[in-house]
Amino acid sequence: MILTKGLLVSAQNRADCTAVIDGERRFTYGQFHDRTSQLKGALKDRGIQKGDRVALLMMNNFRYLELFYAVTSIGAIVVPLNVRLTLPELERILEDAQPVMLFLSREFLPAAPILKSKVPSIRRLVLAEDRKPGRDEGETISYEDLIQSQAPSPLDYEGVEEGDPAGLFYTGGTTGRPKGVILTHRNLVANAWHVALGIGYDRETRYLHAGPMFHLADGASTFAVTLVGGSHSHLRVFRPAEFLQVLERERPNATLLVPTMIHALLQSPELAKRDTASLGKIVYGGSPMPVEVMKKALDRLPGVRFYQAYGMSEAAPVLTVLQPEDHDGLETEREHLLTSCGQPVAGVEIKLVDSEGDEVLVGEVGEVIARGPNIMQGYWNLPEETALALRDGWYYTGDMAYRDKENYYYIVDRKKDMIVSGGENVYSVEVENTLYRHPDVVEAAVVGVPDKSWGERVLAMVVKREGSALTEETLIEHCRESLAGFKVPKCVEFTEELPKSGAGKILKRSLREKYWESHTRRVN
Amino acid sequence: MILTKGLLVSAQNRADCTAVIDGERRFTYGQFHDRTSQLKGALKDRGIQKGDRVALLMMNNFRYLELFYAVTSIGAIVVPLNVRLTLPELERILEDAQPVMLFLSREFLPAAPILKSKVPSIRRLVLAEDRKPGRDEGETISYEDLIQSQAPSPLDYEGVEEGDPAGLFYTGGTTGRPKGVILTHRNLVANAWHVALGIGYDRETRYLHAGPMFHLADGASTFAVTLVGGSHSHLRVFRPAEFLQVLERERPNATLLVPTMIHALLQSPELAKRDTASLGKIVYGGSPMPVEVMKKALDRLPGVRFYQAYGMSEAAPVLTVLQPEDHDGLETEREHLLTSCGQPVAGVEIKLVDSEGDEVLVGEVGEVIARGPNIMQGYWNLPEETALALRDGWYYTGDMAYRDKENYYYIVDRKKDMIVSGGENVYSVEVENTLYRHPDVVEAAVVGVPDKSWGERVLAMVVKREGSALTEETLIEHCRESLAGFKVPKCVEFTEELPKSGAGKILKRSLREKYWESHTRRVN
Repeated sequence: MILTKGLLVSAQNRADCTAVIDGERRFTYGQFHDRTSQLKGALKDRGIQKGDRVALLMMNNFRYLELFYAVTSIGAIVVPLNVRLTLPELERILEDAQPVMLFLSREFLPAAPILKSKVPSIRRLVLAEDRKPGRDEGETISYEDLIQSQAPSPLDYEGVEEGDPAGLFYTGGTTGRPKGVILTHRNLVANAWHVALGIGYDRETRYLHAGPMFHLADGASTFAVTLVGGSHSHLRVFRPAEFLQVLERERPNATLLVPTMIHALLQSPELAKRDTASLGKIVYGGSPMPVEVMKKALDRLPGVRFYQAYGMSEAAPVLTVLQPEDHDGLETEREHLLTSCGQPVAGVEIKLVDSEGDEVLVGEVGEVIARGPNIMQGYWNLPEETALALRDGWYYTGDMAYRDKENYYYIVDRKKDMIVSGGENVYSVEVENTLYRHPDVVEAAVVGVPDKSWGERVLAMVVKREGSALTEETLIEHCRESLAGFKVPKCVEFTEELPKSGAGKILKRSLREKYWESHTRRVN
Repeated sequence: MILTKGLLVSAQNRADCTAVIDGERRFTYGQFHDRTSQLKGALKDRGIQKGDRVALLMMNNFRYLELFYAVTSIGAIVVPLNVRLTLPELERILEDAQPVMLFLSREFLPAAPILKSKVPSIRRLVLAEDRKPGRDEGETISYEDLIQSQAPSPLDYEGVEEGDPAGLFYTGGTTGRPKGVILTHRNLVANAWHVALGIGYDRETRYLHAGPMFHLADGASTFAVTLVGGSHSHLRVFRPAEFLQVLERERPNATLLVPTMIHALLQSPELAKRDTASLGKIVYGGSPMPVEVMKKALDRLPGVRFYQAYGMSEAAPVLTVLQPEDHDGLETEREHLLTSCGQPVAGVEIKLVDSEGDEVLVGEVGEVIARGPNIMQGYWNLPEETALALRDGWYYTGDMAYRDKENYYYIVDRKKDMIVSGGENVYSVEVENTLYRHPDVVEAAVVGVPDKSWGERVLAMVVKREGSALTEETLIEHCRESLAGFKVPKCVEFTEELPKSGAGKILKRSLREKYWESHTRRVN
């Protein structure tokens, strides 16, 4: 199936129903369709063709939706960019993707001409705002002018096939060569079905784009919500106070938050003052959520049902979902499931394999490999990395996990973050969960650092609660109570904050970097 | 996706949860998987190969499920047979399908050897019952012996691709050459997704197979319920009293009934005495439901939410769904939607076209044509009929309908049942709905019969309420109050019952037959 069809069916079935809410704006599905068709016409007039890349450097807003559908209905490829990246990082990605057009939010007006001059493939900059660019922003054209240059017409997808690339999603890393994940129409639509059924979206869903729209954690719901004819609300940037305001004003009943956002929300003094009753579902994903944070969330947002989604861009993105009914909340005999990422969604096959590629037994740790219509076509211009990641029809995720006899999966580490200390495997997630159980720990990350006698030793980086007198010794003692000796951190460093990716994932590679600088290999 | 995957995911995620209920029997998904793998092994041992046909002449029971998955995981093709057909009818179908094996329920023990002798492709008869065949049933082998001849093993689908045929479903007609609809894995899985999302099935669904399992109206839910990990209950044959008993005993929360079953249920004196509270959803389909019957159903089953599904075997089968929220039940301003079959399900495209193939306007009647991953591969051994039905990627349904501006569809007639009287089109559904509004009308069918001056004239065949004194004149007068003159039946014939297909569809062709016997053409 082609992405366009998802919009077409809702444009027909839900023509007069609300599709888009963004500040004062309201668009019906009929209007969403019409504007998308106008944008598509304008893009074609400007020479955009099948296979061309169109990059988006935008904060959350409704134009993201229009661009997703307009660009892909031509058979062109959207390249959503992480808005937190630095100029040199963006430049590297754009040089790799070679887009012909760059759409931007006002925040990026200063940066865009620089990017355009460095990446000559970019023929046009478009300011995706209500207002037109000013005189001194002369290289930039206006999004609304593009729309108004065309009359609405029936949207089609002539010449586009489901195996054609629809999006190029660059993955997290901030160093090294950027990796663009190629997702086809088939991949993104398959995921939309998996998510719609796994989370239970329907036309009564009022979804708030609170997580960044450039990220597939949110993108997963973008295509699912449109397919089922629900509505889209938008939060330009996530801040707890604004999030709570939008909840009261627009009454969304579903959203996706990454764990750091949930964490910030729970810390906010506004939380107790605002009406959050509309919010029936929070999907969380993008990175693992510490159990203690989850417990606080269940406690302080009592009406909300939490769905954990586990996946990655390469899986478009969802592989597993933990449903709220799986654990029945706190203090039940199924509470341990809070540390699980759930079960494979219908449509996706998962296996856990050892280094020989053989399936491991229930309870044993192995690498997660996955197969299904949602798995990427490959990495852009990276045939070797693609061949490594996709083998015999399976995608090798690089995540280590075990499963229990009920087929719930538990991620224990990234393969490359696993610590080997004195010949024993230490999975950082287990140690981190232990750290989080200490009431004064706000954030924690565990990495392996070089050690002459043990090969690697366990180091914990911790952000403690403001004003806390927590010491290294106390925290090590706390860990010793529930962890085997080789898993207990040998030292603890306290820090003000931990480096994070655009999706809020803690960047362990940069934490490790300073300890490994003098080493030629990154494993001891 | 391959059908097998739907069972595999539930066998993993729901291994210890109930999958199958049938009388005293209970199987978990683990057991359902294991028995299916055993059956598959036995079938392969008996020489069943990819592409072979396996025919099923069975009443509703759990072995139907095992056969669906075991046969198709080999790449062989199931041929579910209508249990109401006569021997000569079955023989014609079997001669067309050329199956290598025939599975049967005890009711068909006398008939099976005759069928086997007439259709030499059938190498084996299998009695699909708990008990073994008796000595005098020597040609027949035992289903449970087949199962027990094998150890359970992981089910796979090696060598099977989603474009391979999975089922051959013979369509209704009782005269003429049988038409076998070829549905691929892709077709049946696509429909499973459409139905799971359109009706809202999830792992809490407890589905009762009350309609015949050979028919895709029920089959649609078979594959969807397994995919989401819900459970299957079974009613061997639908009778209102048994249906109500199973409701009390097994507490299913969803089922599919064809309108004649709903009608029978509403007439049953048992209805008022039994607890029907478990039943949250009734899907109805297979044929249009008269509005007056629907109103009675809403009134007498107040807790039930009714979903109308419209489709046909060629669409695997669902094209549109009318959701309970669409009409808000009785006596609201949206009550007119009760005559609609709803909106296209996400994944399916529908258009209404005139005889030139051009799309008609909103409110105008045209032929329903459909496109999507659920549309059949073609008719078995019938290249000409296939070419007529599938044109330019669209399936021509032969159903006439209009749509309103909210994109709700209203079926008005089969193209070939449409009556042309004095140059005016009369759509039989409109006339029938008018007849049903008379309190003494139990069943009604309207057909065109030859007329010297008008070409065709409108004839109504009516079953009246027992003891009613209703006359032809009164009923014609009743119609005249709300229908234009050319639509009013010129005569009414009262009858004891109307001929019906296995799905409970009134067979208009046989009603018309006696009037057209002396004519060489069937249109005047």
